[in-house]
Amino acid sequence: MRPGFAFHVDAASPDGARAGVLTTPHGSVPTPLFMPVATLASVKGVDIGRVAETGAGMVLANAYHLHLRPGEAVVEQAGGVAAFMGWNGPTLTDSGGFQVFSLAQQVRVTDAAASFRSHIDGSAVELTPEASMRIQERIGADVAMQLDHVVPLPAPREAVADAMQRSLRWAERCLAAHRRRDQALFGIVQGGLEPDLREESAVALCRLGFDGYAVGGLSVGEGPEAMVAALHATVPHLPTDRPRYLMGVGQPRDIIAAVAAGIDMFDCVLPTRCGRNSLVYTFDGQIRLRNACHALDSRPLEEGCPCLACRHSRSYLRHLFLAGEMLGPILASIHNLTFYQRLMARLRDGVVSGQFDKVCLSLLARLGHHPENAG
Amino acid sequence: MRPGFAFHVDAASPDGARAGVLTTPHGSVPTPLFMPVATLASVKGVDIGRVAETGAGMVLANAYHLHLRPGEAVVEQAGGVAAFMGWNGPTLTDSGGFQVFSLAQQVRVTDAAASFRSHIDGSAVELTPEASMRIQERIGADVAMQLDHVVPLPAPREAVADAMQRSLRWAERCLAAHRRRDQALFGIVQGGLEPDLREESAVALCRLGFDGYAVGGLSVGEGPEAMVAALHATVPHLPTDRPRYLMGVGQPRDIIAAVAAGIDMFDCVLPTRCGRNSLVYTFDGQIRLRNACHALDSRPLEEGCPCLACRHSRSYLRHLFLAGEMLGPILASIHNLTFYQRLMARLRDGVVSGQFDKVCLSLLARLGHHPENAG
Repeated sequence: MRPGFAFHVDAASPDGARAGVLTTPHGSVPTPLFMPVATLASVKGVDIGRVAETGAGMVLANAYHLHLRPGEAVVEQAGGVAAFMGWNGPTLTDSGGFQVFSLAQQVRVTDAAASFRSHIDGSAVELTPEASMRIQERIGADVAMQLDHVVPLPAPREAVADAMQRSLRWAERCLAAHRRRDQALFGIVQGGLEPDLREESAVALCRLGFDGYAVGGLSVGEGPEAMVAALHATVPHLPTDRPRYLMGVGQPRDIIAAVAAGIDMFDCVLPTRCGRNSLVYTFDGQIRLRNACHALDSRPLEEGCPCLACRHSRSYLRHLFLAGEMLGPILASIHNLTFYQRLMARLRDGVVSGQFDKVCLSLLARLGHHPENAG
Repeated sequence: MRPGFAFHVDAASPDGARAGVLTTPHGSVPTPLFMPVATLASVKGVDIGRVAETGAGMVLANAYHLHLRPGEAVVEQAGGVAAFMGWNGPTLTDSGGFQVFSLAQQVRVTDAAASFRSHIDGSAVELTPEASMRIQERIGADVAMQLDHVVPLPAPREAVADAMQRSLRWAERCLAAHRRRDQALFGIVQGGLEPDLREESAVALCRLGFDGYAVGGLSVGEGPEAMVAALHATVPHLPTDRPRYLMGVGQPRDIIAAVAAGIDMFDCVLPTRCGRNSLVYTFDGQIRLRNACHALDSRPLEEGCPCLACRHSRSYLRHLFLAGEMLGPILASIHNLTFYQRLMARLRDGVVSGQFDKVCLSLLARLGHHPENAG
């Protein structure tokens, strides 16, 4: 990796799960790591001090969203996205590829560029690999992502292959356009659920040479088995000395499976999105806080959880949601973010202690419980 | 005052502004004090730890709202409203009188009770002085308020006198019905803008004997001069050794005027309500965060303010509001709550240092500025 960056694997399980450390100019983070999503330079509903208290070490922001609002000039003037939002640790920006294909309107893709209309005001935007690099350099995260072409699954093999090949051509242009020496650049493996396309994409990207490698185009409705199969078709072709990042995944059991498959980095909006909707994660499964069974329940969401929400009773948290108080979404988001960080810590400890398989089995068994029914 | 409670005046200005300490079973708070409003046992958008960080010493909740949601049984089971919301300091509940007359539907008042329909689901509710005491005892704040009859101003003298007399009769019934020895009970002076009615109400209440005295029925659109006149008609008839509480007030300049008139306690939703609407208070006047002039402004809202929001730039805070991020309302509410606490501290310091008039003049001069225009 380039100067200022490092990735070191401390321990690995026999099957390939890894415990490591990712170093950036803004600090080091143990892996496997989970990045809370600060789409617009704000983790929804959680102030940045509280984000740090959840145990998060690295935060993701979104170049597409920040380009539209407030614009990269505003972020750059603040000293970059970390300074803009008051975060002291490492940051990563997604290139905007996924958002263009999921949020924007009237998308037209040619080799030259992705052309589309803003989901905010309908204005015309053209995103080239070069523009994406320029935007991400100005936003100034520690890690930038190549622009890629994402197709929703299921899709015909033809379309998947076409998008994968285009992503490779864009990868090369991103590498050529990227100037900031204090910013790492990750390539993104595409290829849908086709093992040979995933392999072709991974091998070609590695030949180009990136600071890290992401697996993109998953968590788009393909199901957990298909996701794991795609990982197994990809990971063996990635270098062991570079971080591997599975974009946008996911549910706790998906993360466990992906760590087992050798993934080091994750991001997902689920902890905050579910939290806003009164759904909280615990190691004994999910809790729907609006349910009547919590009305007089004096227990915290999870015994032993150090988060702010767990200083309150389920009864209080349920009341906040039923009364429409903002504090309900705030506290549930904080709890879920804390849960994800505790999950990552347990997986890491499992690798380090040589007990990874046992830890995974135990986690999966408990996550399958239904604590609301168990009373 | 009853055992466990005390009110001590440390210093007073020649004109009657006071600096004191209010002691309750849950701790002591310097006065003049400002209580953030936790209507439904939550200060809107601000977790209770952050509320404490603003410098707040005492929090207000609302018996009417908590009676409807989640019901006093839920709050009582949690050990009272302070434990329910995780607040370690003193609390006060408003009786619900003001909410009945401002929020509820189909209100009918007789000497027996206020009958109305819930603003949540239209169900019929009957609130008697005895029921209000029972509800507030179960909610369990340190300080309960008598049930009073509030009329919106302007109103015919006849109606004001009638409501004031009814409030007095209800005051007597509240005193008779109130059982909790670890909960103080405050009477509420009514009488609108009629000086003789205010005097009559104050004198009669003092004859009944309460732990403290509130001035009610103001901040309902009467304007600042009328409010101060009503205070001057009331305060001289209240005992000097009991706390005086001006309910629901208000803007910073109203609070300054009321402290000058001898008031010790305040509550108001303005800091959080304005904060949610991107209006922030500073000692140099108000700032409307959505204004374009803040787009690239790297300054904090207020130099020297220790709050969380002031670790960010105005540019970032404006972006949060324009992007519809929850964090905008959260941070602006925290700033405004902090501003109010700093205002109270300056007023108290003014009394203690013998410089109260000077402090007030200086505060009022700066508050009149328009920092956005001053650039």
